[in-house]
Formats: sequence, structure tokens, C-alpha cells
Amino acid sequence: MPRLIALYNTPEDPAAFDAHYRDVHTPIVSAYPKLRDLKTSKPEGVGGRPSPYYLMAEMTFDSRGDLDEALSSEAGISSGRDLRNFAAAGATLFVTDDEADA
Amino acid sequence: MPRLIALYNTPEDPAAFDAHYRDVHTPIVSAYPKLRDLKTSKPEGVGGRPSPYYLMAEMTFDSRGDLDEALSSEAGISSGRDLRNFAAAGATLFVTDDEADA
Repeated sequence: MPRLIALYNTPEDPAAFDAHYRDVHTPIVSAYPKLRDLKTSKPEGVGGRPSPYYLMAEMTFDSRGDLDEALSSEAGISSGRDLRNFAAAGATLFVTDDEADA
Repeated sequence: MPRLIALYNTPEDPAAFDAHYRDVHTPIVSAYPKLRDLKTSKPEGVGGRPSPYYLMAEMTFDSRGDLDEALSSEAGISSGRDLRNFAAAGATLFVTDDEADA
């Protein structure tokens, strides 16, 4: 199923970022129409190198159409606008859809 | 469960990258001891912006200990060495472990 992946760069004030993400941003994202799942995690480094990202959010939908509709919805527009309130360090967004299992 | 995420930058020769990833790199990664799942996908852009990454690979393990053991194994060392054969454009690696579901 299509997933919208958001990778957040390390913020200047991690505690403020965490509080805003939990109390303001998560409720907005949770209101996306037809959102099937929201997962968040704090990436860790590997092989002695630190993680280049501070937070990873994965938002799953049944179809790419549903995903695009969610981003065009009121909640989608609000979530985009909300980035400026806590993600000044930058965020990377893309959509992924599994192709193969080993 | 812990996942090792590999995000590959866009290669100079995508067809050669795809062939090497499929025929050489995937068999090496599939030999990781205790690998539970390997998923790959070609990210797409969103909101009118292209995806910053060309390929996403997700390798799932039962524990961070298993993941680290896999990377220290013969297959893990081979996969790291193999990067120079096809991933000259660069790759980003980190480990993620889901914290919450909405």
C-alpha cells in the first residue's frame, strides 16, 4: 500500500519539536481522510554513523489517489502549513509503494 | 520490529543500477542471517516535487541485536563492499523501530 514518508532533520530544540509534533501535528495528520495507519519512529544510526534524520513518519493509504486526496484536504493543507511551526530544520517527503518481498 | 532503511540517491545509469541491485546486491542482502523481510520500492515525488531518492530498501529483523549481527556477518560485510560497485551516487542508512500507531 502507498506510504507517505516524512523524514525530519534534527531540530534546534528537540524537546519543543517533540511537544509540537505530539500535541499539534499528530492530531492534524490523524484527521487525514482515509488514512489507514500512522507510524512514527526516531531513527538510530548504524555502522558508527549517526542517523541523518531525527524523526520518521509513515502514513499509509489504500491507494495513491487516497493519499493525494488527503494532502489536498483541509487537514492536508493544515499539516503542510504547520511544518513552518516546528520543522524549520527541514523535512524530506516522498511516496513509496512496496514492489517486492524477499 | 527494527528495520534497516537504505535510501539510494539517483544513479547516473539507472538501468545499470537496477540490474546490479537485482542480480548482485539483492542475493547478498537476502543472505543476511536472521533477515525477516526485505522490501524495495522506487519512491515517487509528492506535492509537485520529485523524490529525493531513487530506491528505498527496508530490511526487517526481530531485534537490533540481530540487525547488528547481520551487518557484521560475511553477507553484511559483502553488502557494504558491494555499494562501491553500484551506489557511487551515494546512499543514506539508518535504523528505525516503530514507536506508535495512530
